[in-house]
Amino acid sequence: MDKETIRMVKAYMESQMDESDGAHGKEHVYRVLHHAREIARTQPEADRDVLTLACLLHDIGRREQAENPQLCHAQVGAEKAAAFLREKGFPAGQIQRVCDCIRTHRYRKETPPATIEAKILFDADKLDVCGAMGMARTLLYNGRWGEPVYTRLENGHISDGRGDSAPSFFQEYTYKLEKMYDRFFTRRGRELAEERRQIAADFYIHLLREAREADGMPSD
Amino acid sequence: MDKETIRMVKAYMESQMDESDGAHGKEHVYRVLHHAREIARTQPEADRDVLTLACLLHDIGRREQAENPQLCHAQVGAEKAAAFLREKGFPAGQIQRVCDCIRTHRYRKETPPATIEAKILFDADKLDVCGAMGMARTLLYNGRWGEPVYTRLENGHISDGRGDSAPSFFQEYTYKLEKMYDRFFTRRGRELAEERRQIAADFYIHLLREAREADGMPSD
Repeated sequence: MDKETIRMVKAYMESQMDESDGAHGKEHVYRVLHHAREIARTQPEADRDVLTLACLLHDIGRREQAENPQLCHAQVGAEKAAAFLREKGFPAGQIQRVCDCIRTHRYRKETPPATIEAKILFDADKLDVCGAMGMARTLLYNGRWGEPVYTRLENGHISDGRGDSAPSFFQEYTYKLEKMYDRFFTRRGRELAEERRQIAADFYIHLLREAREADGMPSD
Repeated sequence: MDKETIRMVKAYMESQMDESDGAHGKEHVYRVLHHAREIARTQPEADRDVLTLACLLHDIGRREQAENPQLCHAQVGAEKAAAFLREKGFPAGQIQRVCDCIRTHRYRKETPPATIEAKILFDADKLDVCGAMGMARTLLYNGRWGEPVYTRLENGHISDGRGDSAPSFFQEYTYKLEKMYDRFFTRRGRELAEERRQIAADFYIHLLREAREADGMPSD
């Protein structure tokens, strides 16, 4: 794909991002593209152009989902990408492969990634919720939606997040983030995730300890 | 101070907090109260009642500052606290000492904390921006105001935050958070901060490294 085409796709992507969402803005997209290319070095059969287009366009449905939580950004993003790429004259087969990646990059049992490009996008996107970056992005997201670091159990104690239904950073960490590391499709993705596992685990443990040590709800 | 009085002050405080601000909600207030009591164990001359009232009421001016950034929450909070405590019949001398603490808990050259209770509140409040909790609260705050993890220098590279004027997590960390550890007034406060220093430094270093390693802004 030539530079002019990439520049045109980037410009469209950036016009669709919601930059007040620090977790899913264009910088996230560029990190995902980097991760995907790193993983693709071990997967010579992956189509580079399909992968680049899928990475750049994978989150263009986020704004619609933020405005209407009934919508799935992966589904909306795939539809928007198809319309955009058709208008720009991309071949139908390539559009189909790009949109398959976008539709399946969100973890849902009913839509697992099937192609190698879809598996790479999935892993690249999940790498950005691993490590310190995953913690930082999750906290930005919590802050955006007014969610706290932790909530309390019925007995008044600070919950570690496990089994919580109320949204919080600890709930998201224990429900999703700490399990991500075992859910990669590519070996290289899993390796890169593993390098980031410890700092995330350390951060959670310290944060929980600091919260509980300072639990000064006064009864006197 | 009796339990009924504490309960009444807590209820007023909770009614004034903005719980969509995960960084400065009532859980922050209770952690500050815990830290203050921990520090006060090494400062027998500190007045426990003044300290408890000052901790509980120190951030009740936050909502006003969020609505009008021209206002200083420490100043507004001191005025609101004085009015509330007067109405409830607290002695004038005690009200004055509580309000002195609240007015000087925010670091400003022109209003350094002068009394021992004010120094303890200052240190207790700053402890909650140290360690993993400080990182988490700052990121919640960034997310609330749509601020990113990092910004870019004019040459396109990711900034480490030093010297930045645009708000971001890295800017806040290098401008304020990493320097907090040397700005405590009490020895016990400094000790408690020191215990939390390493995890914050580790988190920043990992986050910066992850961001720069994944800097995949595509020029091709």
